[in-house]
Formats: sequence, C-alpha cells, structure tokens
Amino acid sequence: MPASHPFDRLDELCRRRQSAVCVGLDPHYELLPPDLRGRGPLLHVRDYLHDVLDAVADVVPCVKPQIAFFEALGPDGYALYFEIVRAAHQRGLFVIGDIKRADIGSTAAAYAKGHLGPDDGSAVDAVTLNPYLGSDGIEPFLKVGRAKGRGVFVLARTSNPSGKEIQDHGGVAGSGGGDNALYRKVGLLLQKWGESTRGACGYSDVGAVVGATHPDEGALLRRELPQTFFLVPGYGAQGGTAADVAQTFDANGGGAVVNSSRGILFAWKEQERSGGAGRYAELARAAALATSAAIRAALPARS
Amino acid sequence: MPASHPFDRLDELCRRRQSAVCVGLDPHYELLPPDLRGRGPLLHVRDYLHDVLDAVADVVPCVKPQIAFFEALGPDGYALYFEIVRAAHQRGLFVIGDIKRADIGSTAAAYAKGHLGPDDGSAVDAVTLNPYLGSDGIEPFLKVGRAKGRGVFVLARTSNPSGKEIQDHGGVAGSGGGDNALYRKVGLLLQKWGESTRGACGYSDVGAVVGATHPDEGALLRRELPQTFFLVPGYGAQGGTAADVAQTFDANGGGAVVNSSRGILFAWKEQERSGGAGRYAELARAAALATSAAIRAALPARS
Repeated sequence: MPASHPFDRLDELCRRRQSAVCVGLDPHYELLPPDLRGRGPLLHVRDYLHDVLDAVADVVPCVKPQIAFFEALGPDGYALYFEIVRAAHQRGLFVIGDIKRADIGSTAAAYAKGHLGPDDGSAVDAVTLNPYLGSDGIEPFLKVGRAKGRGVFVLARTSNPSGKEIQDHGGVAGSGGGDNALYRKVGLLLQKWGESTRGACGYSDVGAVVGATHPDEGALLRRELPQTFFLVPGYGAQGGTAADVAQTFDANGGGAVVNSSRGILFAWKEQERSGGAGRYAELARAAALATSAAIRAALPARS
Repeated sequence: MPASHPFDRLDELCRRRQSAVCVGLDPHYELLPPDLRGRGPLLHVRDYLHDVLDAVADVVPCVKPQIAFFEALGPDGYALYFEIVRAAHQRGLFVIGDIKRADIGSTAAAYAKGHLGPDDGSAVDAVTLNPYLGSDGIEPFLKVGRAKGRGVFVLARTSNPSGKEIQDHGGVAGSGGGDNALYRKVGLLLQKWGESTRGACGYSDVGAVVGATHPDEGALLRRELPQTFFLVPGYGAQGGTAADVAQTFDANGGGAVVNSSRGILFAWKEQERSGGAGRYAELARAAALATSAAIRAALPARS
C-alpha cells in the first residue's frame, strides 16, 4: 500500500473536527501549575502533556510539540518528546514536530532518519525546516518523508519581530518587504520542491510556515502559493487575530492550520486569579474549542 | 571568578597544539569499520568516538560533534552526544556543538538552556546557529553563553552547493554574490551582535561559519569582519584546500579553525584497500597531524 499524502490526512482531520487549530506543546517549565511540582520537571511536564493530549484529542486535528522545550530538560527530555509524539498518534492526532532543522545534504539525511524515519509511532507526520542552506538541506527530508507519507513545513515568514532582518532582505524598503524580498523567494522555492506531490486536497507535501503577525504578507503568499499548505504560528499571545489568520486560508476555508501554544496549553493561567488552577486540562479543552470556533467564524464555510 | 572568553581558550589551544584543526565527529554509521559491528549501532559509535578522542586529544585544539548523526540513532543517540561532549572536555578539548538551532526568542532560550546551560561538563564551549530568524533567534544564546563563558558561530556562508540559493539573495548576479548578498549582511549583523565582547585574542564571542568551498568569499568576509572568529567547514572531502582555507585566517595565522570530518574520523577508509582497517584511531591521529601540518604550512607563522 503506498503511503498516504500527509496533508490529505491533515485536511480530513480538520474537516472531521471542524477545526483548523494546532495545539502547540511548548512546555515552558515556569508556566506549569505550581501545585503539580515536587516530583521534578520531567515527570511534571510528562503528566501535564499527557493530560492535555487526552483533553484536546477529539476537538482539534493536530498538535505541534516544540522540541526545544524538551531539549531544555536534557536527554531524558528529548526522549520524552518522542513519547509525547507516540501518545499523540495513539489519540488519532496529526503531529507536527517543530524542530526547525537543516544542514548540508549528508547531515540533513541523518536528521531525516531520526525524525521522519522511525516506524514505531515516534516519527512525526511533518517537521518544520529552516531554508538557509537551500535545496540540499531540504531534499533528504523529502526523500525519507515521501517513502513514509510524511511532509515538511519550510520557514518562509516567521512570526517574531526580528525575522524581517533576514527575510525581507533584497526587497524594497517600506513596501512590506518588497517584490524581491527573501521570504517570497523562499515561498517560490518551496512551492517548486513540492510541485509534483499534490494530494487529493490540492496541496503538495511541502508546506510553509507563515506567521500570523504579518497578515498582508500572509495574504500575498496565499495568492502566490496556491498549492502550498500553511502552518500559521503567532496567533494569540504573539498578537495575531482570527481576521489576520483568515487571510492565509483558501477560498474553501482550507489549506492552513493555525498554531496556538500558550493560549490553549496554559489557558489555566488566565483563570488563576479566579481560583481555576488545577483544572488545566479542562481549561485547555475549553480554550481549544473557543479558538477553533473563533477561527471558524472568520473563514468561509468548508464545501 | 568571571567566565573566561571562549575564543581566548580556543586561541590558546590552537597555539599550544600548533594546530588550527577541528575534528568533526560525524558518526555516519555506514562509514564505521565493519569489523566492529555486531553489538548494535549505539555501542559501536560510542566506542569508535571514545577511541578517536583518545587518539587526537593532544594534537588538535577542538572537536565538533554533529548532533544530527546522534539524533539519527534515536533518544539514546542524543544522550550519547552529551556523553561525547563530556568525554571531549575531560580530554582538554574545546568542543563545538554543531546543532544549527534557531527559533523565536522564548524557544531559542529553551535551546540555549539545553545546550549552553549545564554545569556538569555536558554543555559545549560554542554552538552553531542559523540566522534565518534574525536577532531574536540568537540573543538568548548570547545571554546564556556570556554568563558561562561560551560562544556561538552563526552560519554566514555554508559549504554546500545550494547554500547560494538563499545566501546570495539580494546580490548582483555573476559578481560572487554581489555587494548586497545576504551572507554579507549576515556577516555584518553577527559582527554587531558580538561587538562589545572582544577577548584578549582580539575576537568577539560571536563567530561565523564560512565554508572553505568559497575561497574568494571567505577572503572577503575575513576583510569585512576583522573581529570575527571563523569556523571553516568544507575542507577535504567537500573540496576545500589548504590554500583555500588560508584566506580565512588573519595576518598572524589566527582567527579561524578548519573542520575536517571524514578525512580524519574515517581516515581508515583510505587505507582499507591496503589492509589498514581496524587501526582507525591510529590512522585518525596520523590524519589529524597531517591535516594540521598542511594547513600550518599554508599560513603565516604565529607571532
């Protein structure tokens, strides 16, 4: 049986859950509820993430563990990342590994083997990649991913303030990055990397990361890259609104997922003042439902 | 006691060992000697790397474990990376962690904590970083590194063929990347990030990765970035020669280290035809000495 197309699976889950929300699993240790502490950071993070996965698995299509927060916990934290990936798969979620790797070809192949290769449930459905090394740094991931039905999201326009220092380079100052800005070139390159791999959903297996904090550029990229699925970070805590992210979707309300990390994972922090701490999983579920509804309301109905 | 400057330590080791060679620890499993197999990849890689560290520790100043090859071995491989970092420190080597990370600020801080933070010997002396996210993605590493006497090398010009797709962007075609090419802007940015941190050696704690496969651009960056220490990959297997890399050093034969991975780590492969397999550590030491001598011969004598 040939491997299924990663973004066909994701699109199907978005339809079934009526949600285009990806829950970012960024376990900042300092944001975990204090009443869970005492057994050390690792077990604390572990229980917290398993509980949140249980609470959101039937209301969102996907989750995005951010590997940096696991690496911050040392080698045991790194092992926990793969445990959480397996747990998310067992709950039927599409899993995006936010690893932002890239290197020269032979080295990129080693990363691809570690993150897209395993057949024991610990490989993610898609990884995020950094384009700075060009095609060589991406192709080994496509090779492994295509054999396994797994995809990639390449950073085009990141959500952070200083991304423009590099990503606007080559463009005309004052024109929103300009016609020749690097992020647009990256967009065209990544569309080319994926051009032969459109799934039934209409999208290739090479997606793009397009920050919600740059809505005009998101709308521009949506027009320029009609075959590219978008992963949209920067919603909520970073400032992106439902109207901002709506511009990164296609005319049928598809073609993108919006990541929310803090607003869902740490929804309990909002409630802390009113005595809600301890109910973090329940509050995460409520926030996932509310975020899904807010974004759905800003989109055309799915056909 | 204030933390010492990372590149003062590295410069001192280069002088003491009379070598500007960094041994790249890229344990491609397929390149390991077949006669060591049978106990599984992890133990095999482990023994191989410990043996090579023992053999080269007194003849080179530094080593650069490439974390991708450890991640390819799964979570236990990731733990082995830190074991090898500790072992290299115990043998008096400067250790560069080739991790090429970068992310938005809060996430970069998590990576910095994991890779530059630990005080148990498992933190490297410097990490490699990717500039695509701009200053936000770099600053958290500088914050942790400066408290601990640890540095960074930011990718400017990578050694792989397709790096130019991104790194030449904005420059004038046909002029070696052109005046406005992105890699030059990255060079100026990284010099600025380090400007207040020059050590006794004359270099800041923000180094640059400058591939040996682009000697004219290496010479240009050397002139433009007089306070920036260079890590120069691409020597040997990738095509860079001693004359090529010489242009990335300063007039006193300092300011750079040249990485060689395959040519030293897998020197036994060259000898295999003549029956030399099994003596890989001894052959790695001989190759480290020969590479050091070849590069030293292309440089001005150190004052």
